[in-house]
Amino acid sequence: MSKRTGTLIIIGGREDKEGERAILQEVVRPVAKGGGRKRLVIVTAATTIPQEIADDYRRVFRQLGVGHVDVLDIREREQAHDPALIKKLDDAGVIFFTGGDQLRLTSQLGGTPLFAHMLELHARGTVIAGTSAGAAAVPETMLISGQSEGSLRVSASTLGMAPGLGLLKGVIIDSHFAERGRLGRLLGAVAQNPYNLGIGIDEDTALVVQNERVGRVVGSGAVYVIDGKQLKYSSLSEADPTGVLRMHNLTLHVLGDGDTFDLSTRMPHPPAGASAAAG
Amino acid sequence: MSKRTGTLIIIGGREDKEGERAILQEVVRPVAKGGGRKRLVIVTAATTIPQEIADDYRRVFRQLGVGHVDVLDIREREQAHDPALIKKLDDAGVIFFTGGDQLRLTSQLGGTPLFAHMLELHARGTVIAGTSAGAAAVPETMLISGQSEGSLRVSASTLGMAPGLGLLKGVIIDSHFAERGRLGRLLGAVAQNPYNLGIGIDEDTALVVQNERVGRVVGSGAVYVIDGKQLKYSSLSEADPTGVLRMHNLTLHVLGDGDTFDLSTRMPHPPAGASAAAG
Repeated sequence: MSKRTGTLIIIGGREDKEGERAILQEVVRPVAKGGGRKRLVIVTAATTIPQEIADDYRRVFRQLGVGHVDVLDIREREQAHDPALIKKLDDAGVIFFTGGDQLRLTSQLGGTPLFAHMLELHARGTVIAGTSAGAAAVPETMLISGQSEGSLRVSASTLGMAPGLGLLKGVIIDSHFAERGRLGRLLGAVAQNPYNLGIGIDEDTALVVQNERVGRVVGSGAVYVIDGKQLKYSSLSEADPTGVLRMHNLTLHVLGDGDTFDLSTRMPHPPAGASAAAG
Repeated sequence: MSKRTGTLIIIGGREDKEGERAILQEVVRPVAKGGGRKRLVIVTAATTIPQEIADDYRRVFRQLGVGHVDVLDIREREQAHDPALIKKLDDAGVIFFTGGDQLRLTSQLGGTPLFAHMLELHARGTVIAGTSAGAAAVPETMLISGQSEGSLRVSASTLGMAPGLGLLKGVIIDSHFAERGRLGRLLGAVAQNPYNLGIGIDEDTALVVQNERVGRVVGSGAVYVIDGKQLKYSSLSEADPTGVLRMHNLTLHVLGDGDTFDLSTRMPHPPAGASAAAG
C-alpha cells in the first residue's frame, strides 16, 4: 500500500456533536478552513433515515468550518453505478459513512464503481471516516449481529459475520462497545480466526489510523484491543463445541485518548509524557 | 492454611433453581442424601427480603435432597453475638450466603463471634457458598459499586471498594458479569492493585474453589479472569489521572463449564479430553 493512503477514522458511534467535538474535529481537519475546493461527502447508505441523519451532520460539519458538504444519498445499488454520482466524489477530501446497518452499507456499495472510486481516492489520500455501522463495516470481515450483554454461546450461532468494506486488514471492529456490553461477541469473532485483532470502540471514541498501521485514540471512552496471538485454547476448536465460548490466554489492552496502537507489532503505547509502568 | 479447608463456591447470581440446577447440586453435595446430621445453613444477612429469599432456597434445597435446612436470619449485628445462633452453626456442612447487598453482609457479620465461628468451621471443612452479593463479598477487598455498561472514568471515582469477608486472598470478584457489562469496573478494581486477579462471574455460573487454590467452573455462563501481572502501563499510576481508565497488556481468560483455573500459577486448563490449542 502507498504511504499516502488517507487516514481512516473509525468511530464507535454517538460521537459528541455539541461540545468540543474532538472526534468530528479530526474528521473535518483536511477540509475545514483552507481546505480549498476539497469537499466533505456524507454517505448515508447505511441508514433508513438518510435525510434526517444528513441534515444533522451537515449542520455540525458547517459549524466546524467545512465550506463544502455534499451528501451521497444512496438508497439503491443502481445509484452506485451512476457516473454523475461517482464524479461528485472527485473533490472529496473526506468521505464520512454514517451509522445505520452495516449490511445495508456493504450490500449497496460493495463491488460498485462508486466504491472502487472511493478506494482509489483513499489510496491517494482522501480520509475515510465511519461511525457505528460505518465503523463496523471497515474490516474485511465484519461483525453484523450477536448478543450484547452476555457471554457468547457457541451452540446458539448468534454471531453474524459478513464480508466488510475491506478498508483495514486483520481486524474485527465492534462499536458502542462498553455501553452495550459487547465483549462476548467480539471475543467470538476473534475466536473464529485469531489472526484478527478484535477492536471494540466505545461511544464518543475513535481510532484514527494512519498508513493502515498506527491507530491513535481520540475521545472520551475506551478502545479495547483483544489479541489472540498467544491464545492457548479455544473451545471453538473442539470437535463438537457447545456451551459458552471459552478462550485461554488472550491479551487485552484498554486504550484511551492519546494512546496509540501499532497494528503491525500489536503493541500499545501511552501518550508521550505519561508516567512509567505499573504492575 | 489447612488442606482440609472447605470448598468455596462463588456464584455469579441467578443460578438455575428449576432445571438441572448444576450449581446448587454442587452446593448441596456434602449434605444431600447420606449427609447425616450435617445441615445446610442459609444466611440471609445480605438481603432486605430475608423471608422470601429463604423460603425460595429452602424449597429448592429440599427438592435437592437436603434433610436439614436452617436459616440464619440475621437482621442486626447484635444477633451475630448471640451464643444460641452461633451454636446453630455447629452441624453446618454447608453455609450459603444469599444475594442482596455485600456491604450489608460484611457490616453485619464482620468481626463478630458468629463469623469467626464460620471461619473455624470452614477451616475444618465446611463448605461456604455465596451468590451475587454473597460472591462479591468473598475477597479481602470487595467491589461494592461502579458503573456497569461503560468504560471506567478515572476521575469520576465511581468505583466503590470495601473490606470483604476475606475468604479468598488475591482476588476481586464481580457477579452478573457479562449480563451487566461489568468489564470496566472489574478492570478498575484490578488497576488499583494488579496483585489481585479480577474474576468476573456470569449469572448461573460458579467457580468452585478447592483448598483456596484451584477453581473449577460450573454452569451455563463464563468466568472471566483478568490478570494484571504483565501490565505495562496503567493510567491510574499517573500523577494526575483523568479520563477513561487505560491499561496496557492485560491477560484475559474466558473460562466455561469444566475449565479449571489455578489461582497460584494463574494458569487456566481446559477440561480433560478437550482438543489442543488454537491460535
